Amino acid sequence: MATIESKLETLGLTLPPPVRLPPGLVLPFAWVRVKGDRAYASGHVALAPDGAIAEPRGKVGAELTQEQGYHAARLTALAMLASLQRELGDLDRIRAWLRVFGMVNTAPGFDRYPLVINGFSDLILELYGPERGGHARSAVGLAGLPFGAPVEIEAEVLIDPA
Amino acid sequence: MATIESKLETLGLTLPPPVRLPPGLVLPFAWVRVKGDRAYASGHVALAPDGAIAEPRGKVGAELTQEQGYHAARLTALAMLASLQRELGDLDRIRAWLRVFGMVNTAPGFDRYPLVINGFSDLILELYGPERGGHARSAVGLAGLPFGAPVEIEAEVLIDPA
Amino acid sequence: MATIESKLETLGLTLPPPVRLPPGLVLPFAWVRVKGDRAYASGHVALAPDGAIAEPRGKVGAELTQEQGYHAARLTALAMLASLQRELGDLDRIRAWLRVFGMVNTAPGFDRYPLVINGFSDLILELYGPERGGHARSAVGLAGLPFGAPVEIEAEVLIDPA
Repeated sequence: MATIESKLETLGLTLPPPVRLPPGLVLPFAWVRVKGDRAYASGHVALAPDGAIAEPRGKVGAELTQEQGYHAARLTALAMLASLQRELGDLDRIRAWLRVFGMVNTAPGFDRYPLVINGFSDLILELYGPERGGHARSAVGLAGLPFGAPVEIEAEVLIDPA
Repeated sequence: MATIESKLETLGLTLPPPVRLPPGLVLPFAWVRVKGDRAYASGHVALAPDGAIAEPRGKVGAELTQEQGYHAARLTALAMLASLQRELGDLDRIRAWLRVFGMVNTAPGFDRYPLVINGFSDLILELYGPERGGHARSAVGLAGLPFGAPVEIEAEVLIDPA
Repeated sequence: MATIESKLETLGLTLPPPVRLPPGLVLPFAWVRVKGDRAYASGHVALAPDGAIAEPRGKVGAELTQEQGYHAARLTALAMLASLQRELGDLDRIRAWLRVFGMVNTAPGFDRYPLVINGFSDLILELYGPERGGHARSAVGLAGLPFGAPVEIEAEVLIDPA
């Protein structure tokens, strides 16, 4: 078993299946786009174990607490890792995380976005370590995210070419 | 005639001229930045045939319907293709679309951003096909976009170096 | 002294020390992530001379005027240059600015984001000139930025590999 997959198992974490989209939604783009030594991960949201968009939904600072936002960001990491695994074969092909753009569906008055997106970064760093897992990051407040998702994150990673 | 330009003609689509900026607005940056095999497209908005920022403006879910937002995203693709053509010479130099970041000027309560930004993705895929035209994408809700534009999109593409 | 550092001195500009984070905030990511010939700068905000998040904070169009937003964007450039200098050794290693993503913490009704983010672009262009300093850019309105910062900017630059 690849190293990262083995670490996920040790942590008791399971990668979700592909997203089950809400009725009427067609997405023509790729969840992960690979060219040469780069993989670009589309904006991902937290998924339930059956691939549905996870609950709770809504705005962090209103429908969700900061801690629930942190958990959504952690689930978002799992959803992105699942997409990367499907595209790359195994997660050890990721040589380095480069850029993470973390978006929080924000209620007025809430502004602790970095503490929400840490749910994503902490898991990536736990799995990949500081050298491979380190990344540049922004964590900011959006006026809305698709279908009421509390967190959406996109990323760029360096990979071993096929 | 280059292949993509020929397809645009077949579809009856015309690329707009350079943007006519509102009075008092000076933009010191490049609409397309090229280095090596990468071109970075700045955030583009929908343009009218004379290069003015297109009408209607405002928030999708309020001043614009979802369908009008889709159309604005399609016009945004044409504006970006126009900038890429001016910078690259012809649009066949684009080997692959990599990353598309779609921003919707959102009214409270609207959250079907992917269905808006599909107006951009659908046209790129129609012109370039699934292999070259595929891209990673986010589609999210912004609190505001410059001069009331309903949609703004930036992108990164892989090109044949000059 | 490196050329860019010398220009900063001529302009009477000083780079701030590393950010002093608000109590309770741990940031596990890198301010600048370098791989090969690319450096990715995390989302930066304006800093005071002691490294604290600069005042005034709040929304441009409400707590801050457009002109104060412009100044915050200029201070954001200095904070990012400081991070790049610490990571790269000197600022002459930047061969070209590629992509700048400018985020304005916006009050309802304000939409002149490009004129705010010009505070960043104008300084980069003054320091690096049009060829190296040119960049693709978006300038958009966010619903919130961390800890009430009025402006946050992330960037990607081309560098001389170590």
